[in-house]
Amino acid sequence: MGYHSGKSVNLILGALLCAALCAISAISNAGNVILIIGDGMDDHQVTIARNYLVGSRGKLTLDQLPLRSTAQVLSVDDKNPDRPIYVADSANSATSMASGVATSVGRIGTSAGDDRDLVNIIELARKKGIKTGIVTTASITDATPSAFYAHVSLRDCENPEMMVEVETYFGTIIDCSQDLKSNAGLGSISEQLVDSGVDVALGGGAKHFIPLGEGSDQTVLQLAEKTGYQVVTTALELATKGSGKLLGLFSPSTMPVMWRGEGGRAAEKPVPSLLNSLHWTLGSVTYPEPMDCEDNPEYIGMPSLALMSETALSRLTADDDTFFLMIESASIDKQSHQRKACGSIGELQQLDETLGVALAFAESHPGTLILVTADHGQAAQLVAERTLFSDIPMPVYSPGHVARINTLEGEVMAVNYATNDFIIEEHTGVNVPLLSNAVGQGLVPAMVTQPEIFNIIKSHLLKQKQSDPINRI
Amino acid sequence: MGYHSGKSVNLILGALLCAALCAISAISNAGNVILIIGDGMDDHQVTIARNYLVGSRGKLTLDQLPLRSTAQVLSVDDKNPDRPIYVADSANSATSMASGVATSVGRIGTSAGDDRDLVNIIELARKKGIKTGIVTTASITDATPSAFYAHVSLRDCENPEMMVEVETYFGTIIDCSQDLKSNAGLGSISEQLVDSGVDVALGGGAKHFIPLGEGSDQTVLQLAEKTGYQVVTTALELATKGSGKLLGLFSPSTMPVMWRGEGGRAAEKPVPSLLNSLHWTLGSVTYPEPMDCEDNPEYIGMPSLALMSETALSRLTADDDTFFLMIESASIDKQSHQRKACGSIGELQQLDETLGVALAFAESHPGTLILVTADHGQAAQLVAERTLFSDIPMPVYSPGHVARINTLEGEVMAVNYATNDFIIEEHTGVNVPLLSNAVGQGLVPAMVTQPEIFNIIKSHLLKQKQSDPINRI
Repeated sequence: MGYHSGKSVNLILGALLCAALCAISAISNAGNVILIIGDGMDDHQVTIARNYLVGSRGKLTLDQLPLRSTAQVLSVDDKNPDRPIYVADSANSATSMASGVATSVGRIGTSAGDDRDLVNIIELARKKGIKTGIVTTASITDATPSAFYAHVSLRDCENPEMMVEVETYFGTIIDCSQDLKSNAGLGSISEQLVDSGVDVALGGGAKHFIPLGEGSDQTVLQLAEKTGYQVVTTALELATKGSGKLLGLFSPSTMPVMWRGEGGRAAEKPVPSLLNSLHWTLGSVTYPEPMDCEDNPEYIGMPSLALMSETALSRLTADDDTFFLMIESASIDKQSHQRKACGSIGELQQLDETLGVALAFAESHPGTLILVTADHGQAAQLVAERTLFSDIPMPVYSPGHVARINTLEGEVMAVNYATNDFIIEEHTGVNVPLLSNAVGQGLVPAMVTQPEIFNIIKSHLLKQKQSDPINRI
Repeated sequence: MGYHSGKSVNLILGALLCAALCAISAISNAGNVILIIGDGMDDHQVTIARNYLVGSRGKLTLDQLPLRSTAQVLSVDDKNPDRPIYVADSANSATSMASGVATSVGRIGTSAGDDRDLVNIIELARKKGIKTGIVTTASITDATPSAFYAHVSLRDCENPEMMVEVETYFGTIIDCSQDLKSNAGLGSISEQLVDSGVDVALGGGAKHFIPLGEGSDQTVLQLAEKTGYQVVTTALELATKGSGKLLGLFSPSTMPVMWRGEGGRAAEKPVPSLLNSLHWTLGSVTYPEPMDCEDNPEYIGMPSLALMSETALSRLTADDDTFFLMIESASIDKQSHQRKACGSIGELQQLDETLGVALAFAESHPGTLILVTADHGQAAQLVAERTLFSDIPMPVYSPGHVARINTLEGEVMAVNYATNDFIIEEHTGVNVPLLSNAVGQGLVPAMVTQPEIFNIIKSHLLKQKQSDPINRI
């Protein structure tokens, strides 16, 4: 059985915040948009998490949203943007949602081919005096969040030291020379965050604020403080009421996830007997042992996604402003890359809890559009724990990695990872869920391309604002 | 490039039929339900077919339906029906939709544990004088169609010779002794089709009508004719106008699919070099060559799913009756089991074309509810043609089977099959799409369990009928 008790700190801190947030009486703050992105959260991930968390017949909070759509994930070839690419990454898919333009894999807010800066929803919002916020469990400079405020040719260029001829994994060299400020670019992603003026930015990625800003004798963090950001680094600091611009950096890079497999176990390869290795019809196979999900000790002290989102909402509405808030549950994807089903499930639980916060907020702020979607599909497949061919006297098993998870309803659920045998699994090209609260009625058709999500957000955020003469700019 | 010219016969026959069908002027035949099931048609299958057929930015006909929902696929343990099973088969999932009860894998219209006969929608409809039809590209006695008219403990018991101690694949023994008529059962599936009184039944499976009926000196086919069925076996016979009960059997078992991979190729395993076989970081890998989809020569002469569906609609509405029609595109699943992406794509194209027929019918028959759904997920995954790790100097490749398909927009799309290395891939447990035309507004919520689809059908079919005093029984 799963064992998850480590949420009490977050609940207490959440209660403190609720005192602030819930005190705001019902205000028709029409025009607000809360976009919640589950990174890699395709229907397999949702079904796996549902089975674990509430049982196969149960309903997650996101399952209860009244409007369902699906998004076609688009990606194009960088050298020839007329050519489609059928599987996306978080950089180009987030750029689709943030800017309404399909671009190429790895690009942040820039166009494929001619490397133009694409106007994003945060820039449009700020021009209209609309407040903006970014919350994520990844580094705040990671692909999904950065596509909402930055423009850079490669997602890897997250800080000033990662701009020129940097070696990343397995000898791959990345280079963002053309994005250097000295080359009339906008600088690295962390520098662009500081320059973006986004009102609230909460997540991981503290290490990207330690280097000196390009051409500066101050670190990016010091530059942030200089431009008016209050910087917080712990859950307790986060829960302390305040106003003004807020930058929260709670871990060096990706924030640790809430849950993990027993002892940190990931999916494992079934082990065929020697006889079966000789011929597939012979011998037997040993499956990985079932595992519980358990609290991840590294998560202790981390603010939950819900707590970060509550804080963001509190800050963004302090002066009864309209706002755009992007919230990302990042590690559904990152844990799936690592074949860690419990990690993905816990992260989806975080998203679902956060959606609860957003729905409660929308209750008291009618007209707040809530969208829940994913950026792309992921490798994890919910497969049969007992093969269809279990009556056959020969071993039938996955050629990939399998996690067998003990669910909270007392069954064993098998999750298969088999896009490759490399150390990291890959994305898939499936279309992804797009859900909305009732405010989306008439705004969100039954199917959209991912760039059309930008139009939906823009339409709700800016039309409403324009219709309010007090706030017209 | 794909090469698909073999549809002309069907188009001509379709035109003949349209003369009959389209002559019916707009009639408010409220209460009709057309349920279209894509067997194994999860979102991966839909995306793969979309990319191939209309391009990644294109829209299939089913993409254009105005209401989107999703269905939780439920299955239970046969010995302990309180225990969920996370991956279903077509028998139990079709029983969910036909009878509103989640049952165990392999069961047709019977309950898990106590083996009760579950009342199905066709029985309810017939009691109210509503006409009924079944159209499929599988055997008419296969799991999905039979769950709508039959009650038997095992899906394999398709004809009188397959009832007792029959050896199926790899020595598996199936036994439906308790369903024998001599044991107060209802007999085999083909016999039950004849007894069901369903007005139109079109598909494959002729071989299941050749054996003598249990305790009879007549074949099941002769028994069918005796009970008033007109039997047709060719597309030309099918297109000939007629009235009364119709049984069409166009192939011995599953109908041949429209398309196949070049020369019948299925997905293949990437072949690592000797060096790579020694260590995963070394050497290289040879991927399967890309393939076109081409016409399947075995399909020649087959009626299309659209033609069968047009005929069924014509027969069912001959006297301006209300009707329930289940249409199954069966081989999305069956071809995916065999790792044949082109076969699945062609079959989904058949479904999409058939949906066009249904929508045209609903135009002239307002109030006709059209539902499009799948019964369960399948193995096929749309994966990256160019791995995310293509810049790394080591081979990264699927441990499963890969089909690389040349799409009609001129790109290569990679489809991965990796649930096992056995001769047949397996189902997955993902929730599946449920789409509806505008008549579903207020009837189809954004998420349902699969048994709730039965309630939706029943509600539309019977409520409307009851409100019509002339037809009240």
